[in-house]
Amino acid sequence: MSNPTAAMLAIGDEILSGRTKDTNTGFLAERLTENGVNLTEVRVVSDDKGAIVEAVNALRSKYDYVFTSGGIGPTHDDITADSIAEAFEVSIDVREDARSVLATNYPNGEEDLTEARLRMARIPDGAILIDNSVSKAPGFKIGNVHVMAGVPSVFKVMVESILPTLKGGKPVVSVTVHFNVPESKLADELRELADKNPDLSFGSYPYVQDGKFSSNIVVRGQNADRLAEAKGILEKMAQDLAR
Amino acid sequence: MSNPTAAMLAIGDEILSGRTKDTNTGFLAERLTENGVNLTEVRVVSDDKGAIVEAVNALRSKYDYVFTSGGIGPTHDDITADSIAEAFEVSIDVREDARSVLATNYPNGEEDLTEARLRMARIPDGAILIDNSVSKAPGFKIGNVHVMAGVPSVFKVMVESILPTLKGGKPVVSVTVHFNVPESKLADELRELADKNPDLSFGSYPYVQDGKFSSNIVVRGQNADRLAEAKGILEKMAQDLAR
Repeated sequence: MSNPTAAMLAIGDEILSGRTKDTNTGFLAERLTENGVNLTEVRVVSDDKGAIVEAVNALRSKYDYVFTSGGIGPTHDDITADSIAEAFEVSIDVREDARSVLATNYPNGEEDLTEARLRMARIPDGAILIDNSVSKAPGFKIGNVHVMAGVPSVFKVMVESILPTLKGGKPVVSVTVHFNVPESKLADELRELADKNPDLSFGSYPYVQDGKFSSNIVVRGQNADRLAEAKGILEKMAQDLAR
Repeated sequence: MSNPTAAMLAIGDEILSGRTKDTNTGFLAERLTENGVNLTEVRVVSDDKGAIVEAVNALRSKYDYVFTSGGIGPTHDDITADSIAEAFEVSIDVREDARSVLATNYPNGEEDLTEARLRMARIPDGAILIDNSVSKAPGFKIGNVHVMAGVPSVFKVMVESILPTLKGGKPVVSVTVHFNVPESKLADELRELADKNPDLSFGSYPYVQDGKFSSNIVVRGQNADRLAEAKGILEKMAQDLAR
């Protein structure tokens, strides 16, 4: 599979303290998979410039696309835009295009742009704005890095607005077969099946239902016929094991 | 704050594809915060030995504690134990103590330990077992790295069993004050307050309720009296802004 690769970088102390449960990563993962982009790594770091710069630079050199969430609001702990500018070694200031967009969010337009609000119009040099149809304050794209808001409703509309701009690969589709036995009862047969079908990826995911260990086997690939074949074999396995 | 630091490494293609939503990180984050350990970084990588080895080695040298989830079951895609052995450059094989514990999970004991099940008794040299009261198959600790299951009910009991073995710091506690205005209306005053109180950490978390932007201000610190002072000031601010 030569689909493009991607990394997600979630930024925020509130995720690391457990106070906020990150749902943006799961949403992005689903949408990228549907669009033929392979999310390959996720990192969460705190609101710390050094940590953000290090993570952004590590990820942008390693993957085709990087997506960040969080830290682009108006308060003192919103340091993502400045950190991204530092990572790219470019300058950053309030930019006219961002200021104009932002002003449309307030009753008196530009007059309402206080110093705090203007922080949301600080955009690194060379970046392209990302639309925010919820609350106007834009995200931005610089190089292969897409910088987006942490508020889930805003993150979502930003992701939807950039998806058409990505060069996606062939979507990876999957089939799932349920086994009402623990993994250990199907592991040997599954390994054989995986060895015989190197063009497909076989994942085994145990879960507990009513106190009983069961398994979901997920097969992923890019060819629907090959997936259907594998599904047939797995369903027969599941029936035999259920006897 | 000189509390110990920690990193979480979640391992699994199913998280990166969006199929499974990771809840282990949020649980660990809460429990570490309650125990005075600062979760400082999270990574998610795929079921790929190279990626696991690289992440484990990066994190274990940087933080006091590392916690991993996933990839220690009986199937071909469970490669975490072998990857950890490679990261630590130690050998790995079925170990008697792990085999004995595992056998207690099956009606005929050792006789029921098929080749696939025995994979769950593969433990790197020098590691200490971590209890699994749900399904017996143990986790393990090697150096500062705690290797645990991905199934949430098992991950939880493993975390609970190791928490008493960690050297925790002074728990960080927090107070939250709700503001029914967007962040930009309180940002300037909040920055001043943060500057005046460097022993406390002030976080601002916007959220959307009934289509209206509101804010939660969270203050974190280790001294209850100082938190109460800050809370009083913020509550007055919230009242004034609500007028």
